[in-house]
Amino acid sequence: MINNYEEAILLFSCNDRKGLVFKLTDQIFKFGGNITDLNEHVDTAEEKFFIRIAFGYNSNLISQNELIASFKKLADNFNATWQLNFHDEKQKVAIFVSKYEHCLQEILWRNTLNEFNIEIVAIISNHKDLEYLVKQYNYPFYYFEITKESKLAAEKKQLELLSSLEVDTIVLARYMQILSAEFVNRYPNKIINIHHSFLPAFAGGNPYKQAYQRGVKIIGATSHYVTEKLDEGPIIEQDIIRISHSDSLKNLITKGRDLERLVVSRAILLHSQYRILVDGKKTIVFSN
Amino acid sequence: MINNYEEAILLFSCNDRKGLVFKLTDQIFKFGGNITDLNEHVDTAEEKFFIRIAFGYNSNLISQNELIASFKKLADNFNATWQLNFHDEKQKVAIFVSKYEHCLQEILWRNTLNEFNIEIVAIISNHKDLEYLVKQYNYPFYYFEITKESKLAAEKKQLELLSSLEVDTIVLARYMQILSAEFVNRYPNKIINIHHSFLPAFAGGNPYKQAYQRGVKIIGATSHYVTEKLDEGPIIEQDIIRISHSDSLKNLITKGRDLERLVVSRAILLHSQYRILVDGKKTIVFSN
Amino acid sequence: MINNYEEAILLFSCNDRKGLVFKLTDQIFKFGGNITDLNEHVDTAEEKFFIRIAFGYNSNLISQNELIASFKKLADNFNATWQLNFHDEKQKVAIFVSKYEHCLQEILWRNTLNEFNIEIVAIISNHKDLEYLVKQYNYPFYYFEITKESKLAAEKKQLELLSSLEVDTIVLARYMQILSAEFVNRYPNKIINIHHSFLPAFAGGNPYKQAYQRGVKIIGATSHYVTEKLDEGPIIEQDIIRISHSDSLKNLITKGRDLERLVVSRAILLHSQYRILVDGKKTIVFSN
Amino acid sequence: MINNYEEAILLFSCNDRKGLVFKLTDQIFKFGGNITDLNEHVDTAEEKFFIRIAFGYNSNLISQNELIASFKKLADNFNATWQLNFHDEKQKVAIFVSKYEHCLQEILWRNTLNEFNIEIVAIISNHKDLEYLVKQYNYPFYYFEITKESKLAAEKKQLELLSSLEVDTIVLARYMQILSAEFVNRYPNKIINIHHSFLPAFAGGNPYKQAYQRGVKIIGATSHYVTEKLDEGPIIEQDIIRISHSDSLKNLITKGRDLERLVVSRAILLHSQYRILVDGKKTIVFSN
Repeated sequence: MINNYEEAILLFSCNDRKGLVFKLTDQIFKFGGNITDLNEHVDTAEEKFFIRIAFGYNSNLISQNELIASFKKLADNFNATWQLNFHDEKQKVAIFVSKYEHCLQEILWRNTLNEFNIEIVAIISNHKDLEYLVKQYNYPFYYFEITKESKLAAEKKQLELLSSLEVDTIVLARYMQILSAEFVNRYPNKIINIHHSFLPAFAGGNPYKQAYQRGVKIIGATSHYVTEKLDEGPIIEQDIIRISHSDSLKNLITKGRDLERLVVSRAILLHSQYRILVDGKKTIVFSN
Repeated sequence: MINNYEEAILLFSCNDRKGLVFKLTDQIFKFGGNITDLNEHVDTAEEKFFIRIAFGYNSNLISQNELIASFKKLADNFNATWQLNFHDEKQKVAIFVSKYEHCLQEILWRNTLNEFNIEIVAIISNHKDLEYLVKQYNYPFYYFEITKESKLAAEKKQLELLSSLEVDTIVLARYMQILSAEFVNRYPNKIINIHHSFLPAFAGGNPYKQAYQRGVKIIGATSHYVTEKLDEGPIIEQDIIRISHSDSLKNLITKGRDLERLVVSRAILLHSQYRILVDGKKTIVFSN
Repeated sequence: MINNYEEAILLFSCNDRKGLVFKLTDQIFKFGGNITDLNEHVDTAEEKFFIRIAFGYNSNLISQNELIASFKKLADNFNATWQLNFHDEKQKVAIFVSKYEHCLQEILWRNTLNEFNIEIVAIISNHKDLEYLVKQYNYPFYYFEITKESKLAAEKKQLELLSSLEVDTIVLARYMQILSAEFVNRYPNKIINIHHSFLPAFAGGNPYKQAYQRGVKIIGATSHYVTEKLDEGPIIEQDIIRISHSDSLKNLITKGRDLERLVVSRAILLHSQYRILVDGKKTIVFSN
Repeated sequence: MINNYEEAILLFSCNDRKGLVFKLTDQIFKFGGNITDLNEHVDTAEEKFFIRIAFGYNSNLISQNELIASFKKLADNFNATWQLNFHDEKQKVAIFVSKYEHCLQEILWRNTLNEFNIEIVAIISNHKDLEYLVKQYNYPFYYFEITKESKLAAEKKQLELLSSLEVDTIVLARYMQILSAEFVNRYPNKIINIHHSFLPAFAGGNPYKQAYQRGVKIIGATSHYVTEKLDEGPIIEQDIIRISHSDSLKNLITKGRDLERLVVSRAILLHSQYRILVDGKKTIVFSN
């Protein structure tokens, strides 16, 4: 029987009302589930309810489909946004890169250590510079030449590839192209970007140069979901590092590299563990 | 009816088993309560369950005593350690100080801004140096002369005072006396100390001097519950600040002061909001 | 003779060229001075040279005026921007406040501990709310009513007061009025402001609300010199604190208060120790 | 002539006395040198003087040997500890590893980005686990089997290898063997270790387990020079990360990995740029 122990994670949000935790946990109790982690947030100003429940269950007693059906009923009652994820189904991830290797290198390396519960199914690039690195780690590399003229056609082909690979999540690991609104809207809250500044400061191009010229004493990096509006999507994670007048622009870029690597990795980890709920332009992050 | 809306916080821990969240939230749902914040932790290694539930309820429908009785039943069933706290009952706090003013000053100042949900009923000292400050803020000041010989007698009188004032929580705000085991055991997990180092590094006396001599690059402060063993109680909160070779011992003390003030304040806040459960030598801190 | 040991701090900047350190230290050596701290920075991109030299000297052997004259000669040769400050001459500081007490309270408290080498000669406010606090610490309080109509007249009177008190440095400790260009230009790089955001993010009004609405995961505070352009002056110091989705706007304000207090205090300390040189829109900060 | 521009870094420490900066910079001025960076520290308690001067010079006008001779004279006069390093001479570095790859991987990767001004001449291990990684980056890998019995003989061979490769600096990148006093004393202040705790807390074995059991709220990593006394050498760099009750021991190890990688990298960078002077059991670190 122990072999039939399975794990699932429920994300569930709706307008706040009494009894929500009770009804959800009642459901889990009824089929003999065991809650291992539960995080709840109530936005009292907006009267919204958010919850993440990780639980184990015996798949001999209830199937995945039955589980889904039982939560669907509750979700319909409460007009909830929800998803139920099963631990044995790894998210399929595609990574988009251009020429900078540091984020890609970090992600691939961490994945070899099994830090993320994901399956990387494609590394997609508009340049061939990083093919060597992808090959080193034995992942499939896809090259799409992108010019001003070919961009939309290339995106179309990329979307076909993503679809054929059943990609769940896209990581822009310093991908130096702006995705079209059409592309972005195909993967709502599924495209993770790393921006090399402490957003909303220094949005747009050349953030390190902007930071250098402004003379800030701290630089940052921001990972966020991509929306139609550049650098304005819901923020997942940010971090910073202290700098000084003695740091040249080159130094800022070097120091910032370390931030970018860490911040995008944390965002992927949070996303892969279903710890993020999106609430309009903001995120609820139930970090461990 | 709105006037009868009350708030309560339940802390509850026991051996882990199925259905605990369900049974607790079921209880709250039954008397029409509304959960506003819920944090749960399962120590899977030790198979222990910890939960904090903040909820609102209508005191016209259920009284405090009825609430307590209903949770007591559950707690008895599960052999749980638990407490139910009502938001309108402020914890009564006594602050012990000696000669350093910075922590006391910070706590009193924050309390005037209503940052803590506490009532400070006594400032107790073995020196008269800080009486002026206590008077400035209009709190009662109690002086106990303490010599090697008078120490136990003084502690006895202090305990009588604390008892007569119905003190719930004691804060040692750089109190330069070591409390006897007998004293400590009267207030288990109710005495908050601030130690001016990153424990367990530099326990005991003169931690800044120890840090200076060791040449560390970071100093810290630690707030913990006091147990019989000096500087070994469960840690509530820690923080650090970067230093360098150019910091003199005097500078370390000055910089450390800012840490001590912040760390002890955060510990008091967490304690006053019933966000801490003690698990043997460790704490579960459900920070917001 | 030991009684005649005096301390001075030289700040000196000019276009970079060979031999600058040698010529400045040669000067100090010649009159028997002893360098206790020396910091140098060369902006290699702009070919500019910045130095801070703290030194002791025997005032029996050379007077302050002679010292000034000797450095003036060097400074003229190199077309340098420079100042020579003597440790026994405390900077005279005026603090401007409105209704928030936390920064003022912190500055006055630190000053009682002699953390700054300054003399606070006036607390100036457009409200009477904080008079009680100023009185508690025994500083002179000046009230200037400011309306849309009276603003320029009030500023004129404030400038007269500052002039009569020989004020060197102005600290805007959450002063809720925008100073006119005329006022600002009377005290170039002498007016220290604290802005309650991580500039350049959330410049302007209500930065905590802006941060809350954007859903950032980190908030900050920035101390900078005031220039004609609002929130765009050279940044002296910044710091940050991590927040989460569970922090209400009220919580952000409370947490931010602690940042503001620390950041403005550090800026005052750096300024009072002559550790800051301004280089266009940026600062060189020779922190210890 | 521009081709003959060379760079050098002087580290110099001695008892404090008047005129030291002047005499050193005079020297540099006399042969037409140009100071690009100067950091000075006076330990006023111990009356010791420490300086780092980076300067450019024209090698047509003065040779490396003449430079060395000229500073030697000064150093002899002041009974100074000193070294003069030339930028075109990269330090030769050997890295010792055992089974954990994260620090090695990080160092090799950063070296491919030319972050350090070093030449890695050997990776030495008592296990073959990481040979694959070393090969991937095309560095020479040396395996030494080490048993209780063979340890001293193995060390002897290692020392011969290091000597034949003219190794300047040794990095213990999670090397799980304790070096003998004899070995350590052959490379005083030349062996950089990374310890996976915030020293002096949790010295010795299994620091993450110790941290987990103690229930600290912050974990750290420490890079230090190795001395005869285990984990007591002069600290170069430390950093920390916040943890909580919800972090399992496994999580601590994963989070700590990121710290170790960063801290050892910063230590190597500081060492390779000659930014560290050792003062007894402490370091002076002139970070940029």
